[in-house]
Amino acid sequence: MKNSFGSSVSITLFGESHGEMIGAVLDGMAPGIFVDEDFIRHQLSLRRPQGVGATSRVEPDDFKIISGVKEGRTTGTPLCILIPNCDVRSSDYDEDLLRPGHADYAGYCKYHGFEDRAGGGHFSGRLTAPLVAIGAIALSALRESGIFIGSHIAKLGGVSDRGFSNSVLDDIELLEDLPFPTLDEKAGEEMQQEILAAYDNEDSLGGVLETIVTGLPAGVGEPWFDTVEGLLSHALFSIPAVKGVEFGEGFGFADLPGSEANDAFLLSGRDIVTETNHNGGVNGGITNGMPLLFRCAFKPTPSIGQEQNTVNLRTMTEETIALSGRHDACILPRARVVVDSVAALAICDLLAQRFGTDFLNPEE
Amino acid sequence: MKNSFGSSVSITLFGESHGEMIGAVLDGMAPGIFVDEDFIRHQLSLRRPQGVGATSRVEPDDFKIISGVKEGRTTGTPLCILIPNCDVRSSDYDEDLLRPGHADYAGYCKYHGFEDRAGGGHFSGRLTAPLVAIGAIALSALRESGIFIGSHIAKLGGVSDRGFSNSVLDDIELLEDLPFPTLDEKAGEEMQQEILAAYDNEDSLGGVLETIVTGLPAGVGEPWFDTVEGLLSHALFSIPAVKGVEFGEGFGFADLPGSEANDAFLLSGRDIVTETNHNGGVNGGITNGMPLLFRCAFKPTPSIGQEQNTVNLRTMTEETIALSGRHDACILPRARVVVDSVAALAICDLLAQRFGTDFLNPEE
Amino acid sequence: MKNSFGSSVSITLFGESHGEMIGAVLDGMAPGIFVDEDFIRHQLSLRRPQGVGATSRVEPDDFKIISGVKEGRTTGTPLCILIPNCDVRSSDYDEDLLRPGHADYAGYCKYHGFEDRAGGGHFSGRLTAPLVAIGAIALSALRESGIFIGSHIAKLGGVSDRGFSNSVLDDIELLEDLPFPTLDEKAGEEMQQEILAAYDNEDSLGGVLETIVTGLPAGVGEPWFDTVEGLLSHALFSIPAVKGVEFGEGFGFADLPGSEANDAFLLSGRDIVTETNHNGGVNGGITNGMPLLFRCAFKPTPSIGQEQNTVNLRTMTEETIALSGRHDACILPRARVVVDSVAALAICDLLAQRFGTDFLNPEE
Amino acid sequence: MKNSFGSSVSITLFGESHGEMIGAVLDGMAPGIFVDEDFIRHQLSLRRPQGVGATSRVEPDDFKIISGVKEGRTTGTPLCILIPNCDVRSSDYDEDLLRPGHADYAGYCKYHGFEDRAGGGHFSGRLTAPLVAIGAIALSALRESGIFIGSHIAKLGGVSDRGFSNSVLDDIELLEDLPFPTLDEKAGEEMQQEILAAYDNEDSLGGVLETIVTGLPAGVGEPWFDTVEGLLSHALFSIPAVKGVEFGEGFGFADLPGSEANDAFLLSGRDIVTETNHNGGVNGGITNGMPLLFRCAFKPTPSIGQEQNTVNLRTMTEETIALSGRHDACILPRARVVVDSVAALAICDLLAQRFGTDFLNPEE
Repeated sequence: MKNSFGSSVSITLFGESHGEMIGAVLDGMAPGIFVDEDFIRHQLSLRRPQGVGATSRVEPDDFKIISGVKEGRTTGTPLCILIPNCDVRSSDYDEDLLRPGHADYAGYCKYHGFEDRAGGGHFSGRLTAPLVAIGAIALSALRESGIFIGSHIAKLGGVSDRGFSNSVLDDIELLEDLPFPTLDEKAGEEMQQEILAAYDNEDSLGGVLETIVTGLPAGVGEPWFDTVEGLLSHALFSIPAVKGVEFGEGFGFADLPGSEANDAFLLSGRDIVTETNHNGGVNGGITNGMPLLFRCAFKPTPSIGQEQNTVNLRTMTEETIALSGRHDACILPRARVVVDSVAALAICDLLAQRFGTDFLNPEE
Repeated sequence: MKNSFGSSVSITLFGESHGEMIGAVLDGMAPGIFVDEDFIRHQLSLRRPQGVGATSRVEPDDFKIISGVKEGRTTGTPLCILIPNCDVRSSDYDEDLLRPGHADYAGYCKYHGFEDRAGGGHFSGRLTAPLVAIGAIALSALRESGIFIGSHIAKLGGVSDRGFSNSVLDDIELLEDLPFPTLDEKAGEEMQQEILAAYDNEDSLGGVLETIVTGLPAGVGEPWFDTVEGLLSHALFSIPAVKGVEFGEGFGFADLPGSEANDAFLLSGRDIVTETNHNGGVNGGITNGMPLLFRCAFKPTPSIGQEQNTVNLRTMTEETIALSGRHDACILPRARVVVDSVAALAICDLLAQRFGTDFLNPEE
Repeated sequence: MKNSFGSSVSITLFGESHGEMIGAVLDGMAPGIFVDEDFIRHQLSLRRPQGVGATSRVEPDDFKIISGVKEGRTTGTPLCILIPNCDVRSSDYDEDLLRPGHADYAGYCKYHGFEDRAGGGHFSGRLTAPLVAIGAIALSALRESGIFIGSHIAKLGGVSDRGFSNSVLDDIELLEDLPFPTLDEKAGEEMQQEILAAYDNEDSLGGVLETIVTGLPAGVGEPWFDTVEGLLSHALFSIPAVKGVEFGEGFGFADLPGSEANDAFLLSGRDIVTETNHNGGVNGGITNGMPLLFRCAFKPTPSIGQEQNTVNLRTMTEETIALSGRHDACILPRARVVVDSVAALAICDLLAQRFGTDFLNPEE
Repeated sequence: MKNSFGSSVSITLFGESHGEMIGAVLDGMAPGIFVDEDFIRHQLSLRRPQGVGATSRVEPDDFKIISGVKEGRTTGTPLCILIPNCDVRSSDYDEDLLRPGHADYAGYCKYHGFEDRAGGGHFSGRLTAPLVAIGAIALSALRESGIFIGSHIAKLGGVSDRGFSNSVLDDIELLEDLPFPTLDEKAGEEMQQEILAAYDNEDSLGGVLETIVTGLPAGVGEPWFDTVEGLLSHALFSIPAVKGVEFGEGFGFADLPGSEANDAFLLSGRDIVTETNHNGGVNGGITNGMPLLFRCAFKPTPSIGQEQNTVNLRTMTEETIALSGRHDACILPRARVVVDSVAALAICDLLAQRFGTDFLNPEE
């Protein structure tokens, strides 16, 4: 299935940027999971634009769960969540002008012009709202099982944040309510200056998000081809603007010899652990019990106010386009909860395949 | 399915490093595709260890196709290829000693000790031999349709190769027969010096492979969640030692403002193309007709002669291990055809989903 | 995925009998397909209870398509349809009393009591409303490609209808608007008498629906394991009350020798056809160009007014139950459009796998 | 994937009737399962032709397991089994003559003539040999978990066998070694007379196999669309000649009123059971803890000695064909182990999805 992800726990997204509603269906989640609507609201609020350089399209995201929940708990049957689109305006630009860096042209080649291009249509980042709402359910289910996920902006505009410390749970807790998620406050302030400068310049910025997952049992994943890395990256690359995914040292392995890159095993009480975690918690595609660590590279928001060359699809002539409308100068602060959500869903799927339908059932 | 990849065109791998035979099944390939056994042999020869710092385990790879081919062409029904293991020796080390950086411990947690650990068992890089053999069929099928794939070592031991030029087909042709695939000869020589130094030091090196695919039609892939990036990375992360995958500028997008990162559209005759290709041929998860460009980060071979700390699974005591046996100091020269093969299979799958079973049929 | 069907064209159902809304997501349908809301309404009207022995719960089925359609045509991205539940009453019986023949107990064993049992919850036949609405889109898409589907009640209460004639299209047209779909009017009247008698007796009836599909190209389906029969039956058995599926002569083959059961080939102009169609249009799991013919056996509605023995889940005591509420004495007249819908969706999926995403695109 | 079945536990078949070898890959089976080669041999011997009216092509079926087993137990990684074809003769007929009732023509339409038609190629019943070998592993795994499967010929040539008694395990044990599997010896003798008569008449017979599965836990399966019935029938329709599948009363429900068809619940000690088992152990697509009961309708072997009308594909002229070669007059006695094998694989898949990878692990 194409617009779905997951084989045991799965999500299906639907809707368009300027349609009446968007939504998602979650299937395969264990029955009996507490559905915390306040936490969903909290996660949606972190996804909403805020601060300097953020779009002025602000949606209330008044979600409604129309199936799959009874008395505040998952029933085990499909859970559908709907979110109305409220602040929809007609486009600030001619929809026949292909926006550079966007999916307009690729989508046209695929859908022959029948696609809805208004506001990006089904390709819009707006679709991450139901993804975050569903992800919040997955995240709180994992928490009940002692699995925690947190992400911070590792790199943005030439500024780097510190990495996760050994007190990972403290780091994750620190990040939870931060609208601008960095572990080092000063780095965060500098990054925001960079975003402001880009905004003033009618430009945009990309960056890198780093994510950690603690509490995962060892022995989850498959060697060929459903590796933990493969399943996670499959899902993560759907997040608009993600163009790179790496685990552990990732591309940094190019500069490490084996003698430094290997993670030596040692005993911690009766448990086998590794001294370092260069492999990011995965060997041979399977979790080894250490924290799962990965990074996602985001390209800069393609919508910028500066004038760019493009082609008019209708007239087939070369023109220019300037997207002076409502756009983020940098989506990383908002994308953080999207990455957490996608990771949570992929991990629920991995756990369900390994441990069965009731993998997270509080009654079991 | 776990040890398979692909929904329309799929591959299933089986076998262990020290078993009698290993093999693969290819399903869903269009009927009528010419199966060039010489090209399969050529690709397997490029996968075989050679040059300085290479393992002394050399397999003849005498493959046999036992189904799915009639009179030199695919029948359209499952094609099974078998490759005998010949040069199998008992391990040079105690199999209860967990090799750092390997899947021994993760596999033990998953399979409870029933797994075959000899020579890495099912996790062994040896399994890439049938993958390359099957990949050769996919590669030659794509060639008949005007789609070409080539990879080079972009970075290794601090040395960088030049990128692909505008004469992409010349570059791909140049790489085809090179045992050490770099576009710049001098860079290749320096890299080999680095491998030799690591080898002398009983150490190993990782690096980055860069791959280009030309001739892909626009409009292939899905927005959520079967993006081109997601499907390719899903498959690529199965290749042993791959720990990062990026498309276009990838992690480099963190240092580019939107005004430089966007690919402006322009007309080339009656075709819409982009001036630059920072997005690596994919927008919104869908091909845009420009060359597909991606890079894979490889960690250094975990098997090194230097002594490392580890744990003995049987005695549950801390010990040391030195893997002085038959190992590569750097697998990138050999991994190149593996990446090409995996990419070819994933692309065949994408094309079959988009254009149907006969997507490559020479008769159509 | 569990609550979805189809790999290239797929449907996901969500909702519960007594929830606020139910709905479905259609994914993978070709772009540009005309969405005829009047035909959807027509199909939903045929699914609604009517005539003697029908439940008094009548829903207006005011559907709303919230995504995937632009200017009356499919966009190619997921299409979500919502149908509100209006006529919801609290149950006429204690939900802890297991209804014989229903899924109450099986569901309890699966969902540990977290499931919504009101009105059958997610198991309710009410879920076939969005299935029919989505199926209407698939049916009209197939029609544009010259593929027609029709079903009649072949057997009910000891009465048999005549089979499809050689004028299949006339038969299909005849059935289209019939609230009680039989090819022979008199047989239909007798069947309705049987239903009335069962209704008066607080009892219920099952029966057999027979379905024909014309215009399917030869060469669709797979030998192992995605046969036309396998994929269709997989989907058909989801329809509540279906307990048997047969193709061509089906169970009647037990009484035919090979010399009568085989379909001899002959030429019709330049086409190869068969003299008879005992195999129902499928050989070796693959269509042969003759009409696809299958039959579904329905068990009698398990909800009956007569007193039955059962167990109270809460008290774990044996009790009796009489379901005197709103139930159909026979669902076959209404189930007909459900079978047509499921068949249409499965066939769209088969065609998309064989011919690609644009299999039905009117522009191609 | 097309030539595979199962999402958690899966099988992939490859090979052709007249190729060098045929085989199968089993993936996702729990690690640690005892692989009883004697039982595999026993099952293969029951699949081999024997008795009156059986083909004279007799294969030794010397299978070889080349991966996935260590010290007699499954490793949890893919298990590949190979079976050589020995008794291969060139066809007794012109392969351009379409055999009525066979897949020759449907296959030609799908594979454009590139398919291997010799002896039926990939469509041949010969492919059921590796299916039975893999099925034997699944069957013995289920046995260790207290799940038993048995099938008998319920109907053949107008003769009916008795149904399963309340002593189901005795019945299953009785059937295990019978070359002609009927519960009633006399019925078996009469059926064999019918086969002999058909054989003498150069004709063939179909019939009905009935299968029971005991020991299945309640709560396995999904409501929409992965019902127990749907998954089983999906797999069962791949067995050559199966044209109908029914559960519980199946098509017999057409003649039962609800008051007789429902299965009343009652207490048996602390367990909830049903008084009757008309639903065949499944309600709402989910197991209810009662024995799973289903029947498969087989059409008569299409290969008969009598002359039949057909078309020559090469010359496109009408001709006649008589298949006087090596064919079974009735395949039901041999098909019995094929049905058991397919059922065992589908049930392992259902259990793995419900209870996880280790669903059958003896160590857990």
